[in-house]
Amino acid sequence: MTPTAGRHHTDTRARIVEAARFLFWDKGYAATGLAELLARAGANSGSFYHFFDSKDAVLRTVLETYSDLLEPLVLRPAFAGHARPIERIFALLAGYRERLVSTECQYGCPIGRLALELDPENAPAHALIARNFTAWRAAVEGCVRDAGIADAVDVAAFVLTVMEGAVMQSRAYRSIEPYDACVRQLRLHLTALAPPKPTPKPARTSRRSR
Amino acid sequence: MTPTAGRHHTDTRARIVEAARFLFWDKGYAATGLAELLARAGANSGSFYHFFDSKDAVLRTVLETYSDLLEPLVLRPAFAGHARPIERIFALLAGYRERLVSTECQYGCPIGRLALELDPENAPAHALIARNFTAWRAAVEGCVRDAGIADAVDVAAFVLTVMEGAVMQSRAYRSIEPYDACVRQLRLHLTALAPPKPTPKPARTSRRSR
Repeated sequence: MTPTAGRHHTDTRARIVEAARFLFWDKGYAATGLAELLARAGANSGSFYHFFDSKDAVLRTVLETYSDLLEPLVLRPAFAGHARPIERIFALLAGYRERLVSTECQYGCPIGRLALELDPENAPAHALIARNFTAWRAAVEGCVRDAGIADAVDVAAFVLTVMEGAVMQSRAYRSIEPYDACVRQLRLHLTALAPPKPTPKPARTSRRSR
Repeated sequence: MTPTAGRHHTDTRARIVEAARFLFWDKGYAATGLAELLARAGANSGSFYHFFDSKDAVLRTVLETYSDLLEPLVLRPAFAGHARPIERIFALLAGYRERLVSTECQYGCPIGRLALELDPENAPAHALIARNFTAWRAAVEGCVRDAGIADAVDVAAFVLTVMEGAVMQSRAYRSIEPYDACVRQLRLHLTALAPPKPTPKPARTSRRSR
């Protein structure tokens, strides 16, 4: 195989994955037919079956791709420029707000959508969805701990829940208002949970810490 | 038309709606084919088109049915036996917990699932989804007001968000733990928002109605 053929080879696989990622997000897994996927990828069924056993196999690759992209595409841009851990959480949520606003609230979280769509029997896909959720929660959990808030595991699960539920409502109402209302409530909650000072000052006299 | 024929007529329509309700919830809207819907309803395509123009028309009827069933099937059983408004909210959430536990966390909210699945261009269906959300939120909003908590509209939207997001996570993890974690956080939040006394004592003097 020449280098060119190798590159073409890789490109075809990448185009299939990218087409599947888009279509599963835009139309859903069930509604995406193989013919449409191939047409969008500019691939034929021979190449498809060279790389994948089934539509379900591409789905797993798509879900792995989301895991790979979480850090560079979602977390890093949101956290950059925000040193305070609580503000990092709200910057992450502001990213989803931006996605909603720029799509006139047609945006839906691709992982959340698949979490509700896919057959519960499809355990491998649900495990990959859970892996995405776990990585997202782990990033938030770090911020929650850095903010000195207790029960960081619960709080991180709660932040993910608020993002997913609020995106869902804004999509149904075609309005950013439910999203904003939920983020306001979450801010009240996290502010109430946070200790008065984000980092306690080290004691400077011997009597001070009593 | 004899009374018997009339009853059969109504039964067929009801069976189509019930089959569609089940299949849209269990498999999704896109994944439900007309042939499968007819087979489940025990109806032929002639009867189907007598009652409905399209699969989309049945979808709208299904969404209207959910609106009709909210009060008798969801709200009334949850609120019965709970006088305190905050406990009514948590009884409502306990109902979804029960649905998750009894399905080994395979349950997904049928409305939430359609909110994320349906094409945003399908404005009439999304309006009916929003109507369901609004009725659910209105019931919670009443409880929030009765509990003396401010910003009842925001808080009710938040409670719906928590339910939807938490159901989604429990479904993905096939575990009740994320649901319980989120409900614990919501309880902390509502407790912090609630005034010290749930209902102010009525004054007993003549100045009462001022």
